[in-house]
Amino acid sequence: MKLVRFSAGATQSVGILTEQGVIDVARHAPRVRSLADLLTPEGQAEAATLKGRGPDHARGDVRLLKPLEAHNRVFCIGINYRDHASETGRDLPKRPSAFIRTHESLSDPGQPILRPVASTSYDYEGELVAVIGRRTHLVGEADALSHVAGYTCFNDGSVRDYQKFSVTAGKNFDRSGSCGPWIVTADEIPDPTRLTLSTRLNGAEVQHSGTDMLIYSIPLIVSYLSEITTLVPGDLIATGTPAGVGSRRVPPLWMKHGDRVEVDISGIGVLANEVEDERR
Amino acid sequence: MKLVRFSAGATQSVGILTEQGVIDVARHAPRVRSLADLLTPEGQAEAATLKGRGPDHARGDVRLLKPLEAHNRVFCIGINYRDHASETGRDLPKRPSAFIRTHESLSDPGQPILRPVASTSYDYEGELVAVIGRRTHLVGEADALSHVAGYTCFNDGSVRDYQKFSVTAGKNFDRSGSCGPWIVTADEIPDPTRLTLSTRLNGAEVQHSGTDMLIYSIPLIVSYLSEITTLVPGDLIATGTPAGVGSRRVPPLWMKHGDRVEVDISGIGVLANEVEDERR
Repeated sequence: MKLVRFSAGATQSVGILTEQGVIDVARHAPRVRSLADLLTPEGQAEAATLKGRGPDHARGDVRLLKPLEAHNRVFCIGINYRDHASETGRDLPKRPSAFIRTHESLSDPGQPILRPVASTSYDYEGELVAVIGRRTHLVGEADALSHVAGYTCFNDGSVRDYQKFSVTAGKNFDRSGSCGPWIVTADEIPDPTRLTLSTRLNGAEVQHSGTDMLIYSIPLIVSYLSEITTLVPGDLIATGTPAGVGSRRVPPLWMKHGDRVEVDISGIGVLANEVEDERR
Repeated sequence: MKLVRFSAGATQSVGILTEQGVIDVARHAPRVRSLADLLTPEGQAEAATLKGRGPDHARGDVRLLKPLEAHNRVFCIGINYRDHASETGRDLPKRPSAFIRTHESLSDPGQPILRPVASTSYDYEGELVAVIGRRTHLVGEADALSHVAGYTCFNDGSVRDYQKFSVTAGKNFDRSGSCGPWIVTADEIPDPTRLTLSTRLNGAEVQHSGTDMLIYSIPLIVSYLSEITTLVPGDLIATGTPAGVGSRRVPPLWMKHGDRVEVDISGIGVLANEVEDERR
């Protein structure tokens, strides 16, 4: 299933995206009131019983929203592909290196991402995101994947000159990144190391990697983060970007007003955003 | 005024703390529905008209909550006192070094903070917090302080072994820090560089500094963060800790189950928490 947050007219809800449109699961399953509810095993089971229905909203009447609700968090892992570690000249971290992005730093799928007033060194980073579906604390690696509800795409848009001051600064400019367009449930992706991630800038491929090249596996990252905090349904974990970022090219390749960037992951789909200059 | 988030029985609201108890501003001023509303100039003006009233809740019937709502963010500045920079052996940052704490990482005033299962290297950091009261983006230093609604205390509880992997990891263990107990409005603290910050562990002073020792001033930090994101009422900015942290002592001084830690800032008050071992 493709699970979505969406708006349609004055409605904002969660549901299943099908070829025909969107089935509003919250409308038909009273126990599902949020994306977090829908992501749990119980929520997914309720959704599965609705799959045969016609859509509540035609595809063209729906705007997809980033799959992230107010109480959830966005944990990001830095330097998690060897080729990217190599291009940045950084040592491999002893444990996963984590940072946090705020909600405000992420745009919706299909909506513009913003090149900030403060900088022109604005870079793309295509990433695979694991979405938590079961509450967990101190989970072992062997059991970690059973807490992942599904996967989506991420553009960890980065402002490189500010990232030198702190990773948090460079990663948290308003609407500088994006996430979505939907969450593909984990039953359709039994092995998240067998996906191909491709980032395109104005149609030209700028990043290309198998997700088998992750230094720290998704089970290890989930287990590690669960040492720190109780992960809850809807929390997002962005797993890092492969080589090919614009800042390591000669000359550097920055995103600018009017560009179109796509993060394409096999078995998931394409997260596409235009780039706009932020207004003062 | 001392502005608070509080619970009293089944009620959760925002108001003014007085000698007698709490005036529930949201009950009497319909336009004030949240702490963010109360922190705006309009909200503070509404609150000021209620100051003469008797309390809606006696002091003993009220539990104070951390002054932080779901949609707000906690920006923290690292290495911002010269003596702490010196004890950590780190270079002075060229611009403020920022990280983010999640809501889950902060306990309420008076409630236990947690020494995590995963580590014993659990350290205190007393800090002054500036609370945003007016929405702002790209504000200059000269105008920055007019966007600060008030000030409160912060214990930036830190798990030092994980902090070596990433600052975000070490700073985001569940309920490892705390904030409060109230926000003193900025009219009572016209110059936030003239405060004295003291941290006590089991009654013994372990940190002591004037807030005039900040490397980056509050106006500079607010201006800097506003380059990155639109700051909104209720956002918290923790301004860094002075020397005296436990990890730099010989032998190290770690917080442990049964300890009591207090962050005492002149003109604001005392944020006190007991330390408990996190349960598995």
